[in-house]
Amino acid sequence: MLDLLIKSARLPEGPSSVDVGIKDGLIVEIGEGIGQEARYIIRAEGKLLFPTFANMHTHISMSLLRGLGADLPLMDWLQKVIWVLEGEFVSSEFVRDGALIGIAEAIRSGTTLFMDMYFFEEAVAEVAQKAGIRAGLGFGVLDFPTKVASSPEEYLQRARSFIRAFRGEELLFPVLCPHAVYTCSPQTFKRSLEMALEEGVYLHTHVAETPSEVEASLERFGKRPVEHLHSLGVLGDKLLMAHVVWTTEEEREMIREKGAKVLHCPESNLKLASGIAPISDYLRRGIHVCLGTDGPASNDNLDMLEETSLMVKLQKGINLDAKAMDARTALKIATEEGFRAVGIRAGRVEVGYDADLLLLNPNSPHLQPLYDPIAQLVYSAKSSDIDTVICKGKVIMEKGELKTIDQEEVLFLASKWKERIEEFLRSKMFN
Amino acid sequence: MLDLLIKSARLPEGPSSVDVGIKDGLIVEIGEGIGQEARYIIRAEGKLLFPTFANMHTHISMSLLRGLGADLPLMDWLQKVIWVLEGEFVSSEFVRDGALIGIAEAIRSGTTLFMDMYFFEEAVAEVAQKAGIRAGLGFGVLDFPTKVASSPEEYLQRARSFIRAFRGEELLFPVLCPHAVYTCSPQTFKRSLEMALEEGVYLHTHVAETPSEVEASLERFGKRPVEHLHSLGVLGDKLLMAHVVWTTEEEREMIREKGAKVLHCPESNLKLASGIAPISDYLRRGIHVCLGTDGPASNDNLDMLEETSLMVKLQKGINLDAKAMDARTALKIATEEGFRAVGIRAGRVEVGYDADLLLLNPNSPHLQPLYDPIAQLVYSAKSSDIDTVICKGKVIMEKGELKTIDQEEVLFLASKWKERIEEFLRSKMFN
Repeated sequence: MLDLLIKSARLPEGPSSVDVGIKDGLIVEIGEGIGQEARYIIRAEGKLLFPTFANMHTHISMSLLRGLGADLPLMDWLQKVIWVLEGEFVSSEFVRDGALIGIAEAIRSGTTLFMDMYFFEEAVAEVAQKAGIRAGLGFGVLDFPTKVASSPEEYLQRARSFIRAFRGEELLFPVLCPHAVYTCSPQTFKRSLEMALEEGVYLHTHVAETPSEVEASLERFGKRPVEHLHSLGVLGDKLLMAHVVWTTEEEREMIREKGAKVLHCPESNLKLASGIAPISDYLRRGIHVCLGTDGPASNDNLDMLEETSLMVKLQKGINLDAKAMDARTALKIATEEGFRAVGIRAGRVEVGYDADLLLLNPNSPHLQPLYDPIAQLVYSAKSSDIDTVICKGKVIMEKGELKTIDQEEVLFLASKWKERIEEFLRSKMFN
Repeated sequence: MLDLLIKSARLPEGPSSVDVGIKDGLIVEIGEGIGQEARYIIRAEGKLLFPTFANMHTHISMSLLRGLGADLPLMDWLQKVIWVLEGEFVSSEFVRDGALIGIAEAIRSGTTLFMDMYFFEEAVAEVAQKAGIRAGLGFGVLDFPTKVASSPEEYLQRARSFIRAFRGEELLFPVLCPHAVYTCSPQTFKRSLEMALEEGVYLHTHVAETPSEVEASLERFGKRPVEHLHSLGVLGDKLLMAHVVWTTEEEREMIREKGAKVLHCPESNLKLASGIAPISDYLRRGIHVCLGTDGPASNDNLDMLEETSLMVKLQKGINLDAKAMDARTALKIATEEGFRAVGIRAGRVEVGYDADLLLLNPNSPHLQPLYDPIAQLVYSAKSSDIDTVICKGKVIMEKGELKTIDQEEVLFLASKWKERIEEFLRSKMFN
């Protein structure tokens, strides 16, 4: 008996009506008229079946700071707004409530994996677990003190306990996150690498986001950020590097050769005026590129479909070359390439792959007429067209209704935090 | 007695609950607790009130060609796909059905004015009139023959009849559209200008969209496109220029001095690999900038909210300056600046302005918490958050339901054209 049977879905390239059988989280059969019984059946007549998105870089709990300090550049935004508010408010409760709001949004927009990086990740774990969504729980490591720890040693010590506590979960996995070249010493990076190797976890960090980061790295280390990480031995196929906007030819070759992953965040890079990463060049070289939204306070949403559409159009526009990237490549980057970067066999509608799937309703005027479902997913669709979301075989949204999250609770928590944070801002006459 | 009363809406900057009274298409009162009676009342508790969008450059009936030839550059896309299909299919019926699909989409995404440019605009007029949406009906003029006419003289003669037939309508107005520098001779531009002055209509054209257009203009006329139009005397405050991606300092000063309008189409310019217009520079100089989606076959949708968000982020990103444009400026460009460019007093929630208004539901997780409604409209919202749309005092969408268009008819027409067009593509073994 199947766990789940999707009846009569339309594949974007292929037959207009197939059934998909799912068991133990896996796609076990794709065909016309599957006869097997199933515990749960979804009737998908007229709906398109796609893999779900893998959001490979976010700070999901920052949903609570969404929209604050809009229109400031990265360093002002961090120093004058975000770090001040985080200093005041970040706690287990903040992280848990923010994660719930963010996860509700992520599911609604068709995401079933998010690679997070923040504080108090055990609170993210709690919410992600309940919501039935996959999360890479990134334990942040910094050289300066925060509520989490007061020294790099203490961060790393806590990170190890965290890693051991969250290893072996079905949907969750711990990740070690030395924050960036400008917030972690060479020693911190090296010790993070050692721990990642010992514990068998991925490293996730921010790299070469802005020109000023590159300048500071040159000044401090005599090397650009990627060169610097390379010289420390940190570049490798378990390293996930967010942004990677500013690189030389030599650095790109280092990334390719070592198999480090680029987590491209185009909306955040535009909005914080960081620049536009040369993604089509990375792809031509054979670098493994994934896509992420960055935190919802710097984007300002978690919409991977919007991000995918922006990525491909940006590459065409900045290269003055319509062939710089196409819709199919963009979709693969936003789905399969993300899962693959962290060893998850998902992101394709294929037997043997994990059942991380979405159904899309193509009946809105903006998707009509529907000639080329993949091109129109990327260029015309909106996340509101996403109807049903399945994560590792479990239905977490159906016909627009979240199945594992109470949307009323989301609204209640959002308004509670809004009051608290606005009161603080008023008291600081904060601008 | 008021025609329409909006009760208890929230203004993005201002009181959290106001009533808005509307009579004869105008906003006549804004205040707390308006006592007057009204023919129709909308209860807007918890919803945000914004002006609607003015989509200042489109070819709306190209909705029927949406998604075809995705990932081709402008000239290939035009020559190998669009012009072939237009040659085969464009007719009054095609234009009418395509306009209906496009208008349904436009209304759903909060637009109440679109500046169109295509063939058989009387068919657009028919549908726009019934739908209750404003349209600038652009009569296209070309040097080469199409189904409309066989010579520039014949286009212009027909244009004059068209202008006279559609002058004086409430929501519609005729516009004269010499297509572009590369499709209209100096003579055609000059005669178009004369007619526009005689008949008192706006001129709407494509200018400096691609580097190859600039090169061709230099070769043919010894002048760049804006210089060329300037030398013909066509630059002026009744000239609406779509795209304007490639300009020199001198050309920018010509535009500013003559008061010609720039109709920025960032998504189309990226997708067709045309480039990124230097909008923040134009704004600094005091050039009047408006926003458009371009046709739904080159975008591939008519979503002005997405376009607004992209515009502001792009300017930040390419200038590496988060202050290059802000959310408030972007919203003004997408609303008031568009209406103002064609002499319509709309685009503000203010007494004396036309009631072109939308209500937005902020209760989706991606808009929560809601701190700064304007920033969050621009950076976080999706057009699916738009709940109600009012055009010149008439409610054309309410609670997500189109009031003037039958959405079933939209789907039926889309599928009819899809069959016809796909059959033709198969018969041509078209790729």
